[in-house]
Amino acid sequence: MEHPENSCEYKGLTVNDGVDEAPKINPYLTKRIKPRQLSVDDYVNGILKGDRTILSRAITLVESNLPEHQDIAQQVIERCLPHAGKSIRIGITGVPGAGKSTFIEALGMYLCHDSHKLAVLAIDPSSERTKGSILGDKTRMEELSVEKNAFIRPSPSAGSLGGVARKTRESIVLCEAAGFDTIIVETVGVGQSETAMHSMVDFFLLIQLAGTGDELQGIKRGIMEMADGITINKCDGNNIEKAQLAQRQFKNALHLFPMPESGWTPDVTTCSAFEKINIDKVWKMVEDYIAFTSKSGYFDYKRNQQSKYWMYETINEQLRNHFYHDETIGKMLIDLEDKVNRNEMTSFTAAGHVLDHYFSQK
Amino acid sequence: MEHPENSCEYKGLTVNDGVDEAPKINPYLTKRIKPRQLSVDDYVNGILKGDRTILSRAITLVESNLPEHQDIAQQVIERCLPHAGKSIRIGITGVPGAGKSTFIEALGMYLCHDSHKLAVLAIDPSSERTKGSILGDKTRMEELSVEKNAFIRPSPSAGSLGGVARKTRESIVLCEAAGFDTIIVETVGVGQSETAMHSMVDFFLLIQLAGTGDELQGIKRGIMEMADGITINKCDGNNIEKAQLAQRQFKNALHLFPMPESGWTPDVTTCSAFEKINIDKVWKMVEDYIAFTSKSGYFDYKRNQQSKYWMYETINEQLRNHFYHDETIGKMLIDLEDKVNRNEMTSFTAAGHVLDHYFSQK
Repeated sequence: MEHPENSCEYKGLTVNDGVDEAPKINPYLTKRIKPRQLSVDDYVNGILKGDRTILSRAITLVESNLPEHQDIAQQVIERCLPHAGKSIRIGITGVPGAGKSTFIEALGMYLCHDSHKLAVLAIDPSSERTKGSILGDKTRMEELSVEKNAFIRPSPSAGSLGGVARKTRESIVLCEAAGFDTIIVETVGVGQSETAMHSMVDFFLLIQLAGTGDELQGIKRGIMEMADGITINKCDGNNIEKAQLAQRQFKNALHLFPMPESGWTPDVTTCSAFEKINIDKVWKMVEDYIAFTSKSGYFDYKRNQQSKYWMYETINEQLRNHFYHDETIGKMLIDLEDKVNRNEMTSFTAAGHVLDHYFSQK
Repeated sequence: MEHPENSCEYKGLTVNDGVDEAPKINPYLTKRIKPRQLSVDDYVNGILKGDRTILSRAITLVESNLPEHQDIAQQVIERCLPHAGKSIRIGITGVPGAGKSTFIEALGMYLCHDSHKLAVLAIDPSSERTKGSILGDKTRMEELSVEKNAFIRPSPSAGSLGGVARKTRESIVLCEAAGFDTIIVETVGVGQSETAMHSMVDFFLLIQLAGTGDELQGIKRGIMEMADGITINKCDGNNIEKAQLAQRQFKNALHLFPMPESGWTPDVTTCSAFEKINIDKVWKMVEDYIAFTSKSGYFDYKRNQQSKYWMYETINEQLRNHFYHDETIGKMLIDLEDKVNRNEMTSFTAAGHVLDHYFSQK
């Protein structure tokens, strides 16, 4: 349903995987050697061996909107599925300025030194608006981007939230099959994408800053109640006291919230991603949560629920797309919205009119 | 889409409005005289005159699922629309035991003595589960139920949330056209109905109890962040200190939340509905909010957004119903859920299968 311009081809990339015809390369006209085409077997074998170049190319296929790429991508994913699911998936969010990139670099280096294999992905359906603040510039994670046990994948090109979420979720499967045992999914904390992320990770970490004023106003309402843990970042220098006060305030606040379905009481830590202080404490929180929910069975239960959620979410999104992409219906809706706003028609009657039209066409 | 047994006829009520044929009454067999049939004009004129019996019968029509009743109901509502919209609509929620009924009675009596005209409605799609705790028993509001300026309407018979929400929203229109200047909509605070309510009221009040333990665990996550105001009820006797502590805690917690879209900072009061203490302070909070949002233009903006929301929500619900009520699709989904849970298929592929089937039928 996305515009073809969202596909890699139109962005000047040279994805050629899965096209049957051999590319015609004139060595006198091009310096670039196009990568050899890969079969589904090539992809699957490469991924299972942990070949990062092939993993990368497979994710590019997943992100492509071309039907021939999608065909291959789906076959690759399906064959990777039995090898996936064994990682810990962590969602990280926070407003711009909370220090997400610095934090992910610090946590990532900590995990890699602890012999973890880490993949970092991002959900950012509105990347044009956020101007690449979300993994857009790999170089912002200088250490992690050259670390051999880490794999950083910038956000897929902008598209509908559903589309981007699907791509991220399928990329997780590929990374897991490639042997990454920890997956970090990053979002910006201001849009709808946190709900999407919450529905694909095991642990949801919110990065906050000290202060009860404007600094906190950026985060979207409802996100705090989704968090399995909060860390107050930038707890360093002159800011330590303020950060510790914030920690107490957030702890008290979380206490007033109802117990989450998991039965886990979300905790609040302080850390300094910049000074690499207390990164281990944040990780301890994640490990405690995983141990707790694994024992109670909630871990597996949630993963099953998530799979179902995405099946139904995809169905519902496509049903809506089919309806709202009808040109006549689009025009009717403009007129009906107007009538509803002028109190000439109830919302329900208006909905009835346009639904009658839709179903009579069938 | 609801089962015919949900309609009034099957519950043994004697709604006969809008049926063309005159009821055949044998005075020797029945003591009850069936009400005379009313025309759309009769309904509209009666409502606009503030005739409560006719208002009540009109709401019964709105709640009926019979097509012939719905036809008349929609005509009545549409003619009432230009006279509606002039009330303050307040949503009230809280867990069972928070004292909602006692609070609504206290606030209601306070408003009626202050020459307001008050209608109390309820959204409770799961009334069977909550066992009538929600206005199910009018007599729980002993004073208010005999007060001439108050109109209490128990929850419509159980049905889908969408259906019940529609009925409540349309009943609001009728009550406003009948001259009620304040509408209270009650929900139980444990289900999905708070989002529905939030999308039809101007001010959302959460009734809480003191204590940070089990008492608070009943409320559904996310509701606190929807509230425009919180009142800690049962601030009386030995409980005053605890309630005031809770007030401070909630105030601090709300401070950590991001500013709501309205620009209004939610406040927290204490009250005792039983002792009728501080009911005026709760109302002051509502009045301040209305004044603030009226001045900023947010009040009208939100009402427009709500109308649009219900139009699109109704459309989306009907699209889903049409899909999920297909028998073959129901069977396919059971099988696909299974495959997804066994990691044999991705959620997205599963969704694709069933969508292909659906759209190929058209």
